[in-house]
Amino acid sequence: MAQRVLIIGAVALGPKVACRLRRIDPDAEITVLDRDKLISYGGCGIPYYVGGDVSDIEGLRSTQSHTIRDSKFFGEVKGIDVRTQIEAIEILRKEKQVRIRDLRDNSEELLSYDKLVFATGASPIRPPFPGADLPNVSIVSNLHHAEAIKKRLAQGKIGKAVVIGAGAIGIEMAEALTDLWGVETTIIEMADQVLPQAIGGNLATVVQRHLEESNVEVLVSERVSGITKADDSDTLTVSITDRTIDCDIVILSTGIRPNTELAKAAGLAVGQFGGLLVDRRMRTSDPHIYAGGDCVEVRNLVSGANQMMPLGSLANRQGRIIATNINGGSAHFPGTVGTFCIKVFELGVATAGLTARQAKAAGFDPVVSIVTQADRAHFYPTYQAMYIALIADRNSRKVLGIEAVGKGGDAVKARVDAVASLLHLGVDVAEISNLEAGYAPPFASAMDIVNNAGNVLDNILNGFNKTVDPDEFLKELAETDIRVIDVRGAIQAKPYQEKFGERWLHFPQDDLRTRYTEIPTDEAFFVVCDTGTRSYEGQVVLAAKGITNTRNIQGGLALVKAIAPEFI
Amino acid sequence: MAQRVLIIGAVALGPKVACRLRRIDPDAEITVLDRDKLISYGGCGIPYYVGGDVSDIEGLRSTQSHTIRDSKFFGEVKGIDVRTQIEAIEILRKEKQVRIRDLRDNSEELLSYDKLVFATGASPIRPPFPGADLPNVSIVSNLHHAEAIKKRLAQGKIGKAVVIGAGAIGIEMAEALTDLWGVETTIIEMADQVLPQAIGGNLATVVQRHLEESNVEVLVSERVSGITKADDSDTLTVSITDRTIDCDIVILSTGIRPNTELAKAAGLAVGQFGGLLVDRRMRTSDPHIYAGGDCVEVRNLVSGANQMMPLGSLANRQGRIIATNINGGSAHFPGTVGTFCIKVFELGVATAGLTARQAKAAGFDPVVSIVTQADRAHFYPTYQAMYIALIADRNSRKVLGIEAVGKGGDAVKARVDAVASLLHLGVDVAEISNLEAGYAPPFASAMDIVNNAGNVLDNILNGFNKTVDPDEFLKELAETDIRVIDVRGAIQAKPYQEKFGERWLHFPQDDLRTRYTEIPTDEAFFVVCDTGTRSYEGQVVLAAKGITNTRNIQGGLALVKAIAPEFI
Repeated sequence: MAQRVLIIGAVALGPKVACRLRRIDPDAEITVLDRDKLISYGGCGIPYYVGGDVSDIEGLRSTQSHTIRDSKFFGEVKGIDVRTQIEAIEILRKEKQVRIRDLRDNSEELLSYDKLVFATGASPIRPPFPGADLPNVSIVSNLHHAEAIKKRLAQGKIGKAVVIGAGAIGIEMAEALTDLWGVETTIIEMADQVLPQAIGGNLATVVQRHLEESNVEVLVSERVSGITKADDSDTLTVSITDRTIDCDIVILSTGIRPNTELAKAAGLAVGQFGGLLVDRRMRTSDPHIYAGGDCVEVRNLVSGANQMMPLGSLANRQGRIIATNINGGSAHFPGTVGTFCIKVFELGVATAGLTARQAKAAGFDPVVSIVTQADRAHFYPTYQAMYIALIADRNSRKVLGIEAVGKGGDAVKARVDAVASLLHLGVDVAEISNLEAGYAPPFASAMDIVNNAGNVLDNILNGFNKTVDPDEFLKELAETDIRVIDVRGAIQAKPYQEKFGERWLHFPQDDLRTRYTEIPTDEAFFVVCDTGTRSYEGQVVLAAKGITNTRNIQGGLALVKAIAPEFI
Repeated sequence: MAQRVLIIGAVALGPKVACRLRRIDPDAEITVLDRDKLISYGGCGIPYYVGGDVSDIEGLRSTQSHTIRDSKFFGEVKGIDVRTQIEAIEILRKEKQVRIRDLRDNSEELLSYDKLVFATGASPIRPPFPGADLPNVSIVSNLHHAEAIKKRLAQGKIGKAVVIGAGAIGIEMAEALTDLWGVETTIIEMADQVLPQAIGGNLATVVQRHLEESNVEVLVSERVSGITKADDSDTLTVSITDRTIDCDIVILSTGIRPNTELAKAAGLAVGQFGGLLVDRRMRTSDPHIYAGGDCVEVRNLVSGANQMMPLGSLANRQGRIIATNINGGSAHFPGTVGTFCIKVFELGVATAGLTARQAKAAGFDPVVSIVTQADRAHFYPTYQAMYIALIADRNSRKVLGIEAVGKGGDAVKARVDAVASLLHLGVDVAEISNLEAGYAPPFASAMDIVNNAGNVLDNILNGFNKTVDPDEFLKELAETDIRVIDVRGAIQAKPYQEKFGERWLHFPQDDLRTRYTEIPTDEAFFVVCDTGTRSYEGQVVLAAKGITNTRNIQGGLALVKAIAPEFI
């Protein structure tokens, strides 16, 4: 007898399960329910619709061949019964039935299943401060929200915006508002940096500075205490520690909560984040019920801990696996290494694995290298500067994470993806030094930046390269009298000598092996150059001469200037 | 006592060994010899110098911080004695000495070593046909060749060029000559495709067509029988099977031979390609002698066989390893998965692992999927079409290789590099379906092309997706009466129906589940759409109705048109 498969949710995972299952099982009775009329859309594309990169909202609802994915499409093309404006209100696990309600007439009905799939997604959290539910304090999680915001933009009703939360959605929405619409935008983030879940401090500051250069105001380590609305206008007033900000819209991007009330009421196991717990086959605690996408917790393969990972890509991959398993196959979703990427105006940002902070919290002893290098041969004209941070555990030398930022977006992603493939294996730093990514001058350096990130980390772990982070360098330069040895050429060093006077010593690289006698052996120094390469070499030369109390800036002065444009 | 390290060759590997060793051993006596005066340059950059992307030849000899890497630089900055115009002429292994000759005065001298490093590189092969050594029949392997060619170009002396060999250097040189200088260029390749070492047939044809669109004539399956020169002019005449081609320059790009005469004379073991055999620590058969770069054979980690892999990237990575080991460390170079990339005018081409042909030769039973898909979200405006081929072994389902071609160069490389990282591990196809590359609409699709390459291959291996390659489709369409079922929309199908008449049936995707009764069950059909996605779905729908003798074109009509622009 044909298998009856019932899927709750028709945005990303649900349709994927249904379509894949139909292809491998022509006989299954497949029903997909959704509360909404608008289904099967690319939710991740919403900021690009608001920002105008996607001109028509239908673009987010269409297949590659420009067919709208509505109930008719699923029925005729896919042979799948998609029922919209239907809410599942109770799961009768013993009877293998779901009570549903038709939202148009409130009628109820019981549907039987052999296999049930939770594809209920997640909902944005409205933070608990006063005013979070005022009109025009918007969440951005479906096409209705997107259309409402774009309509107000088109009507010229939004001149100033406040975005609360500097995660991916917050930053993407800030770009969408600023770039096309010229909306004056402020991002407010509770953590001490942007993208706190994704990237470490100094590279996060590079992203923040780029947002600022792109006319987005960014306030970190800042909390919203409340939002008020004047009686006689639409203006909202956002209160933070020391000031208030008037604006026409507030976008909330303060996290999500998995939609698992129904599952919990049915007694299915959920984890610490409220997400459904599933095994490697994507089965919940009831073997007849599968779940995937934003409503499940996934295992982080580096830390071993569960996390939420709300990405359309995971939903699609999990959907295929669920369909295979419902059809009697055996496919596994082992977990995530947290690979993430985002476009931030001109910057590409990509990361995978754990940040140093996350690694520490997970019980590792993280050591980080940061490398500044051209993203292709330095003689190739289209090169852009890239910054890569590589994180490993001090004792095991196991690679824990990688982060990259630069203006060559795809090139940034290429480096991270190549390392991300290996992170679940717990590879040694030497594997990154030897990583065999493609080489040709238009695409990479002979010793590519990703290999160098491994080499530098190896040198740090071996005690050859003694480093200081750019933010710490700036702090100590401001707060102490520590002197600097600049190993660059005279022209490069001159403005720094003018600004810092006698504290900024100049020993060009080709003099260092002869003039080292001028440097006291018992004093602490920063050794600097543009990228950290020549200064490392200088550090090694000095060490051999007994001048051992030196630190080399991670990523060099290039990274210092990227996080502190006012520095020089 | 300080270790005496002697390095023969100062282009890529030699300087890398020397510089790394100096950093980790301040005391070693490091000497590097080279026959040439010009040393330590980016040989891979030569086509970009000839083509004008690199305006000044010094660009290829400079560090990232624009310092020329000459003997003075190595002496002052690095503390390394680099002796140019010196040839090593004999290795006295027992005495641990090298006899050298000064090419300026022919004086000879004996140098002692504790450790010796062969960094002698490789030389282009001059093929055995008559005229291969005529003036202006050029190899391109060092800066002198590059300067000579560029000088003649600048003097307007090259209007027509013939490039023999469609490997990387041949194609890069053809682009350099055509793009900036407008030289009318013909590439002649013995194999039946371009890039025969790197990529499979149908994707190679995409590259060939792009070369042709870019005004390069490409002749494959063609041999040069000889080259002649008129007495009264510089014109060269290249003879091939049915014609002759007059030109002003012939570029030879017909492979390389490792420079191992000296090593062989000293009794060191060489392999089937004449390259030095080294262990994982990069030691030759003499434990006091290391070797790396273009003069060694490396193990292919997919096939297990040795190969030559002349790339500056490997040389650099091997150099670091050799230095570590000379200093008493223990670093390993396990081998290569053959990752390769090349820019071909607007196209990026990247590959890793074995082509289907190489896989077959290595004893595997290769199965290939080819996927056509946008390189980022299909609703994101800057997307480009990409083609990916994924190769696995039928029985073990082990992934053997990946190939990608598309106009988003870095995006092409990103997909291949992510898979390349895994190829030495012999992973299952499922790992590519689950590959966790970064996802955001500006960079990838939710189900990205690389995941889909895994999914399609899984469907092929499982017998759901029955395929035909585009070239075979074209052949059978021309030579047989086989009919086609087009599942696209009416507008798309119309020109095909006009061209092919009743052979081209039109069953739009949304009709197929109802109108299948019009299709005979006992006839063979091609099922087609633009990318192969809807046609696969159509194939599955038909199979469920008993219409099972259908084949789906790999990569769809998009790939057919890319290899046969005249098709429609």
